[in-house]
Amino acid sequence: MSPLGSPATLPYGVFSTAADPHPRAGVAIGDQIIDLPAAVRRLAPQLAGAVAGPSLDALLAAGPRVWADLRAQLTTWVTDEIHRDLIAAHLVPAREATMHLPFTVADYVDFYASEQHATNLGRILRPGQEPLTANWKHLPIGYHGRAGTVVVSGTDIVRPSGQRVGPVFGPSQRLDIEAELGFVVGVGSSLGKPVELGAFEEHVFGVCLVNDWSARDIQAFEYVPLGPFLGKSFATSISPWIVPLSALDHARVAPPERSVPVQPYLDDEKTPAWGLDVRLTVTLNGHVISQPRAADMYWTGAQMLAHLTVNGASLRTGDLFASGTISGGSPGSLIELSWNGQEPLALPDGSTRAFLEDGDEVVISAVAPGPDGSTISFGEVRGRIVSAL
Amino acid sequence: MSPLGSPATLPYGVFSTAADPHPRAGVAIGDQIIDLPAAVRRLAPQLAGAVAGPSLDALLAAGPRVWADLRAQLTTWVTDEIHRDLIAAHLVPAREATMHLPFTVADYVDFYASEQHATNLGRILRPGQEPLTANWKHLPIGYHGRAGTVVVSGTDIVRPSGQRVGPVFGPSQRLDIEAELGFVVGVGSSLGKPVELGAFEEHVFGVCLVNDWSARDIQAFEYVPLGPFLGKSFATSISPWIVPLSALDHARVAPPERSVPVQPYLDDEKTPAWGLDVRLTVTLNGHVISQPRAADMYWTGAQMLAHLTVNGASLRTGDLFASGTISGGSPGSLIELSWNGQEPLALPDGSTRAFLEDGDEVVISAVAPGPDGSTISFGEVRGRIVSAL
Repeated sequence: MSPLGSPATLPYGVFSTAADPHPRAGVAIGDQIIDLPAAVRRLAPQLAGAVAGPSLDALLAAGPRVWADLRAQLTTWVTDEIHRDLIAAHLVPAREATMHLPFTVADYVDFYASEQHATNLGRILRPGQEPLTANWKHLPIGYHGRAGTVVVSGTDIVRPSGQRVGPVFGPSQRLDIEAELGFVVGVGSSLGKPVELGAFEEHVFGVCLVNDWSARDIQAFEYVPLGPFLGKSFATSISPWIVPLSALDHARVAPPERSVPVQPYLDDEKTPAWGLDVRLTVTLNGHVISQPRAADMYWTGAQMLAHLTVNGASLRTGDLFASGTISGGSPGSLIELSWNGQEPLALPDGSTRAFLEDGDEVVISAVAPGPDGSTISFGEVRGRIVSAL
Repeated sequence: MSPLGSPATLPYGVFSTAADPHPRAGVAIGDQIIDLPAAVRRLAPQLAGAVAGPSLDALLAAGPRVWADLRAQLTTWVTDEIHRDLIAAHLVPAREATMHLPFTVADYVDFYASEQHATNLGRILRPGQEPLTANWKHLPIGYHGRAGTVVVSGTDIVRPSGQRVGPVFGPSQRLDIEAELGFVVGVGSSLGKPVELGAFEEHVFGVCLVNDWSARDIQAFEYVPLGPFLGKSFATSISPWIVPLSALDHARVAPPERSVPVQPYLDDEKTPAWGLDVRLTVTLNGHVISQPRAADMYWTGAQMLAHLTVNGASLRTGDLFASGTISGGSPGSLIELSWNGQEPLALPDGSTRAFLEDGDEVVISAVAPGPDGSTISFGEVRGRIVSAL
């Protein structure tokens, strides 16, 4: 049984098959997928509305009580002998499934929450200066990305063209990855009403993997003064499986000690503050190039959400906010791994990489501790670079 | 007959009434609104699908041929005597209507396309340096804003709280407006396929007014290095009426002469380049404080769209991209009008304003030339500041 499909994980995704090409909700178990609408109609019809439709949108909107009810049902189905027989009719081999974008992405926000990443980029891009900007330890810096170009794992990534310093126009020559965690918002909030630290679990449904592809050369020319735009907006890949927060109880760890006092809305001394002990693995053409640790993230998911809404910005079902590159332990981007291209990576096949070449395939996978020494798997987010048009 | 409802304008919005609280598409004519689904069912049933639903989304997605067909029908209905009688049963007095957000905002992008505005901000924020950044004349700078907090005119704006330099937390003390035009995308595009300059009209449905509320103090602390975030994301107001591009044929003007050669994808020497001769009026508590001219915008809508997609980013129905503050002739923001607060505006009621106070109401309206010396009105976008929670 693959860890992705363990009874302690029960991640949600959207799949279709040749036999039934309608995208619908599924849950991974072993190397199979539970056809969720079909199984729920049979075994828990009171929850049918929450799993209907071509995406997880209804489930996300349904809220924590329904999430808990459904997970309790699923746990019974996959652990109890009698129920295992009952759901057998609603299992599809994962290898026969096509995975789809699991939810309608409302707004996409990307943070910059790893101190190691921000420090590395500061050293690379502003040598001789203080690596962290003056605001960095006072607030989780973030920006809005393009929701419409969030794509599911497996989607080819067309090398973007754009202007770089010169200016010169052409295909990006410094195409990079960013290995991140993404938080998926289920329950929205009202305009003008901040979401406090303690309300995180009332709103956030689960966690996925994110590869925030980045064209460093396009970004370098465009980003002053209004931030990244075309250097990021061409594509952001997410894993097809959303791991529910409730699968991550054993992955909670205390965040790193904060070196600077923060404003009360970000102060988690009194709330049970937790980061996630998620260990990522980044492979390039099958070779492991980095294993970043999310546990080292300076800002927690709850702090990111509290900051995102402290100005009264509302949330919607399907909002996705990502951590920014995770570089604890080892860096989650090539610009760091190759130190801005000055120290190209040597791959076991004899080639070297400063940045991505056409045909390169990047896979980010991740695991976290589960109950009783088990492992929670996030599956993977995969993408291959195809040449510019 | 108000210019908003002239037969040459025929703007689209979404309204409801006490008698029928379902939001539905409408067209302004005189001081009345044509109940579009009802009128179309009766008089042009072949177009019923394009005007169904609680928003303009289906119409936006339907594309230029349907847009032209429907406009031809509407023009007949409001100008031909017999048809005027036929649609009389489907007219609702505008004063009885509640206006709604007219479409589902997919991604929201804000540009920075007015040379006067960018120059003013450069002088204010980076005195002694070249006012325009090195990239400014090579590409239309833009960034993604928060689609989920785009609100319709008339929505109260809660003063946002956040961190400003210090850091100090509290309600923004430098709350500002930005008077802009917004372009509404109807027809989407494919990932990896740029939209060329000449394809603008195949994708863009129409134009609305935008007030991109800005908390200058929050923005100043947060925006390095990833751009504006909470200083903008609390609310963006748009006018309830979308003026279709086809109503603006007589408003097309040559853009200002470009002082720097641009890359081919932005070079509009060979395509019929046009800006829009839209004259905005900004009032604060009923007093006119500025009358910016959109005709002076350095970058055209077609250039903004070509840039937005040149990296392969796809468009979706409902994408909104705005011009950025329009400051041709006179500035479209208070930070410019009060020169960063150093020269507060004196209002006729004896008060002064550097930035917005609680209770202040801002109305941005606009007109453009129509056929035969007539005037196309954009109506208005209105918002009142209410105190922080």
